[in-house]
Amino acid sequence: MKTLKTQIAIIGAGPSGLLLGQLLHNAGIDTLIIERQTPDYVLGRIRAGVLEQGMVELLREAGVGRRMDAEGLVHGGFELALDDQLLHIDLQALTDGKTVMIYGQTEVTRDLMAARRDAGAQTIYQASNVVPHGMKSDEAYVTFEKDGETWRVDCDYIAGCDGFHGVARQSIPADCLKIFERVYPFGWLGILADTPPVHDELVYARHPRGFALCSMRSATRTRYYLQVPAEEQVEDWSDQRFWDELKSRLPQALADKLVTGPSIEKSIAPLRSFVVEPMQYGRMFLVGDAAHIVPPTGAKGLNLAASDVSTLFNILLKVYRDGRLELLDKYSEICLRRVWKAERFSWWMTSMLHRFDDHDAFSQRISASELDYFVHSEAGRKTIAENYVGLPYEAIE
Amino acid sequence: MKTLKTQIAIIGAGPSGLLLGQLLHNAGIDTLIIERQTPDYVLGRIRAGVLEQGMVELLREAGVGRRMDAEGLVHGGFELALDDQLLHIDLQALTDGKTVMIYGQTEVTRDLMAARRDAGAQTIYQASNVVPHGMKSDEAYVTFEKDGETWRVDCDYIAGCDGFHGVARQSIPADCLKIFERVYPFGWLGILADTPPVHDELVYARHPRGFALCSMRSATRTRYYLQVPAEEQVEDWSDQRFWDELKSRLPQALADKLVTGPSIEKSIAPLRSFVVEPMQYGRMFLVGDAAHIVPPTGAKGLNLAASDVSTLFNILLKVYRDGRLELLDKYSEICLRRVWKAERFSWWMTSMLHRFDDHDAFSQRISASELDYFVHSEAGRKTIAENYVGLPYEAIE
Repeated sequence: MKTLKTQIAIIGAGPSGLLLGQLLHNAGIDTLIIERQTPDYVLGRIRAGVLEQGMVELLREAGVGRRMDAEGLVHGGFELALDDQLLHIDLQALTDGKTVMIYGQTEVTRDLMAARRDAGAQTIYQASNVVPHGMKSDEAYVTFEKDGETWRVDCDYIAGCDGFHGVARQSIPADCLKIFERVYPFGWLGILADTPPVHDELVYARHPRGFALCSMRSATRTRYYLQVPAEEQVEDWSDQRFWDELKSRLPQALADKLVTGPSIEKSIAPLRSFVVEPMQYGRMFLVGDAAHIVPPTGAKGLNLAASDVSTLFNILLKVYRDGRLELLDKYSEICLRRVWKAERFSWWMTSMLHRFDDHDAFSQRISASELDYFVHSEAGRKTIAENYVGLPYEAIE
Repeated sequence: MKTLKTQIAIIGAGPSGLLLGQLLHNAGIDTLIIERQTPDYVLGRIRAGVLEQGMVELLREAGVGRRMDAEGLVHGGFELALDDQLLHIDLQALTDGKTVMIYGQTEVTRDLMAARRDAGAQTIYQASNVVPHGMKSDEAYVTFEKDGETWRVDCDYIAGCDGFHGVARQSIPADCLKIFERVYPFGWLGILADTPPVHDELVYARHPRGFALCSMRSATRTRYYLQVPAEEQVEDWSDQRFWDELKSRLPQALADKLVTGPSIEKSIAPLRSFVVEPMQYGRMFLVGDAAHIVPPTGAKGLNLAASDVSTLFNILLKVYRDGRLELLDKYSEICLRRVWKAERFSWWMTSMLHRFDDHDAFSQRISASELDYFVHSEAGRKTIAENYVGLPYEAIE
């Protein structure tokens, strides 16, 4: 068995693993990232595109903000379309000037990959059979296979940044974890197209036919979504059917402006809320989707991963610089406070904006009243806005 | 059959019927109130005790605010007790100076009865077999029996102020009404005692053993409540058991201060959310509990009845003074906008503060997170405060 040695072994080279790696590398802490897939595969996953201010600042802190700042779109608000009415949520006015950045997860990952390459830090792609070991001992290590050889990476700590289906969480004994989960009876059918956005801000549409979201990746690339039943097949959705259905769920003035075109990508994602507690097991820390999933309605998934990264990075910094080992035990509780608030907001946005055929008449009216109250109350709009731009990161004292 | 004639026949001499009657009488519109029970029976019903600013102003407008202003307690806030922590909701600071008035429903009713007696307006008590007729015709009338005789009251309009179990709503054909309902799996066990309040503001306690509420009627009379299972029997609750259980659900500092004493009244009320749409049927208008029930957690029941009264009064005023007959058709939609917001708030307060044994782990955490977020966010606290003091009444234009 060949051996390697690092301070932090990071499992997963998605945006969480790469961002954590970059921050640690910049701080002089050695990292090794182990990824099951190829770089192209990782870049091929079309995901989120709305970055909270906190994540934007973290990317800048990591030294990977240049292209984002040049090419990303700063949005100071978004629109709620309720039947035929557009209601503006003025994020900037409601949060004392905070904004969000429209910049695709693919681009974030690309920038982080380039930065890691430039820094000369090591990422091992196409590593199979990755397994963390010794998390509860003083000798943590990760094993993997590559090109027919078995490798062992000795390390101080392991960061599980390998997503919901990854090995990190699954390596923790089931009786050490408590799982909280909600599966929604619908998914999002999304398409990516090279068309100009129908509106200069994101539009979240609540409609009797179901939820729709108009978003964009740039001034020439759009990402649109439709709520569809969980069992729907993407093959049943021609581009034409998608565009027709989207138009039927938008206010007339927007539907009339919608520019359609051939889809570049089309897929259905299930909607799920999921949290595991605690988010750590001895020397292994779960980061992002490995520990929690949100439905995409609040654009919180990637941002929540970034706040976990920030927490873990700041704890490790104090551990290595100041010997503050006691902070390690606080990772999970610090993260979970913010995680649950984002879970709540994502669940709330999902509940407010989607059609729930299985809800009773009282629940349906309550949800309509809730949205009606929140969008027409200044304080209500503030709660939406402050969650959408992202609640503050907790300082590590 | 003996006949009587009035402009507005009001069924029910509870606070809604009496308040509507007083406002109309003061405006020179003739009313007759028909009540199934005796005055003492009506006064014996121990109910709400928190009046919104809007209701306080309406009582003053009706000329019945003097004793309330002298004896009522103005509260500028309330406390949330979350496990062992007290969190102050500063209503005044959060709503630009609005407050609530602590003054029991029994006292409101007593003042309204006296005012009606002084005004010489007629209330028929102990009327049996009360039935509204001709609501969809031009000849509305109400029949009832008293002392062995049958009476007929000819009128322009009928106000159904006779509560959830009353005849007014039940006289509307079922296929003309849509019902929205939620029955909660618990009730409130309440006691009334001549003891000094444990705290100078109301305390709403969320506790693993269940919800508790410390409220008062005056500086020497208290009203405390405990969440109990729906099937609980009041006979199983000695005063001692009640006080012990209440102490166990309060923060230690409050439990230590609690002064106990013999109960004057002890009863269990079920918790229910209920709305009927529409709130009118031809010439009959449903007011308050006849059309909607809220769980008591937000103290909205009596206040919602008062806003219905205000709406109906202001419409009738414009109908009789300016011939604005078209306003009559708007009664239900105007009321329902505010009703649903109060239903939402009452459902929300109930959901946040009670223990729901039947909820899954995810729902329980979401509800804890929701409360945690709302009480720790200034905007969140504002949404609680502005609903608690009461959303504004809609003007009748």
